[in-house]
This record gives sequence, C-alpha cells and structure tokens, in this order.
Amino acid sequence: MIKLQPIGIIRSPVTKMSQGNWGQVQAEIHLNDEYVQGIKGLEEFSHVVVVFYMHQATFVSSEHLIRRPRAQANQPEIGVFAQRTKYRPNPIGITTVKLLGIDHNVLTVLALDALDSTPVLDLKPYMPAFDRVESARLPAWVVEFEKGYF
Amino acid sequence: MIKLQPIGIIRSPVTKMSQGNWGQVQAEIHLNDEYVQGIKGLEEFSHVVVVFYMHQATFVSSEHLIRRPRAQANQPEIGVFAQRTKYRPNPIGITTVKLLGIDHNVLTVLALDALDSTPVLDLKPYMPAFDRVESARLPAWVVEFEKGYF
Repeated sequence: MIKLQPIGIIRSPVTKMSQGNWGQVQAEIHLNDEYVQGIKGLEEFSHVVVVFYMHQATFVSSEHLIRRPRAQANQPEIGVFAQRTKYRPNPIGITTVKLLGIDHNVLTVLALDALDSTPVLDLKPYMPAFDRVESARLPAWVVEFEKGYF
Repeated sequence: MIKLQPIGIIRSPVTKMSQGNWGQVQAEIHLNDEYVQGIKGLEEFSHVVVVFYMHQATFVSSEHLIRRPRAQANQPEIGVFAQRTKYRPNPIGITTVKLLGIDHNVLTVLALDALDSTPVLDLKPYMPAFDRVESARLPAWVVEFEKGYF
C-alpha cells in the first residue's frame, strides 16, 4: 500500500465530467503554502507536467479493464493501459500544459483536463530528455479519439 | 490521504541509485496477473509513459524543497517542482520509454530510469494530444543537466 498526500488543488471552471473541448480551459493550480518555495525556477519553463489524482473516477475491473475508448461503439476494445481513460486501477492523470503565469502559490495553466477540486500530486518541468518522443507510432483509433478532446 | 496499490514491478539490471547512462538500459515491467488484459492494444504504440513509485527516495523539506540539480555546485538553486529530482513530496517518477516488446505480462522497454524492484503505478500510451510539446522553452541549466543522463 502506497500513501500519498496532495501538494495542492486544481481550481477550474469545469466542474462536471467532460470528454472534450479542454483546449481553451484556463485552470489554476493552488499549491499548499508549505511548498511555495518548491516552484522557484519553474517560471523559466514554458510547459509543466501536471500529475493529479482523478478523485471522481472509480475502477471496476469487469467494466474498465478492457473498454472502447469513450465507450464509443466505433472504437475497438482496448486495454486500460493502452488508453488514457480516467477509469484506471490508480487514477493518476498526467497532462503536459502550457504555463501562463505564476502568482505566489497559484499557477495559471492552459488546457488542463481535470475537474475543479482535483487534488494535485506533483508538478514537473517538461524536459525533452524525459518526455519528448521525436517520432511516435500510434494506432489508427487514436486519430479519431483525439478529435475534439483538446 | 490517497492510497494506491502497485500494478506491477520493474525488473532492471540497475540495482543502486544512479545519476546517468540510462539510455541503453533494457528493463522489464512485470504486470500483476490480474491486469494482463489491460495491455491489449498497447503493442500498437511505439512509446509508453511509465508511472512508478520511487520507493527508495525520501523527501526532507529542509534539504530538498530547494536544491541544486544533482547537488552540483555549478547548478543554480531550483525548487523541487522545477526539476526532475527523485526527492519529491510524492516520489512519483514519470518517464516516456520505447516499447521493445510484450510477452504475456512482461513488457521490455528501453531507457527506463528506475531501479530494480520499483513498484509500477500506471502505464499509459504515449499520445501527442496529452504529451507532446512542439516547441518548449527551457532554462539554460537544463542543457547541462541532461548531459549524460540518458
């Protein structure tokens, strides 16, 4: 058993489960006061990897271990670890977002696909050595999936 | 308090803390049997985002909230959330790796910077919509940091 404590919370205009149109959403990450010093230097990065705990998502193995992405009938059946569904054994969300600004303990970011009140587990600077893929191969269904998400 | 259960374990030839030369390391991810179906379709992706729990890393606020990357004197003092150090409030590691092969519940991957016996929390397919940054701005110290890491 692994125990974690949130380092902050997401404040977003999106309060209900949504499947798309995240591209123009501006959200705030409110860092707990004890961690404010921990963002020193982050303003020099254009992008941040936000790690969050999708607290409203539940995982039921019989429903979610294999599933059509977004439950769409025209999608193939895909394993949970081959898709980005929120219904995961450990509901950890990871999204790379553009950093718009920092004001004391509040980061403003663009296109974070997380609901209001979502606990934040970690923030990491986007670094090519860890995160960049020059040429990724993707299955055909992903093209359909990505339409309208951001 | 957030509680998580590992979904599998990393098997790697690297057994001691290391700060570099991960590029040629081949590691295996052994998924728990109950989750084997969850990787259906992952073989169509070239890259996987591995989410792991850095079980040997401890966070001491007075030492790690602000720190010179790799404790090198020629690096500036940077907050924990502006660097990729393993010493984090929630020691969650995230690295995008090349998927070399899948055999039942075992994934073989390239350049995973995690020690042998590290618990795995999640696997996600690398998807441009969530993970790709076309043009990232980075501070100068990152160039020095990335030398020799992979």
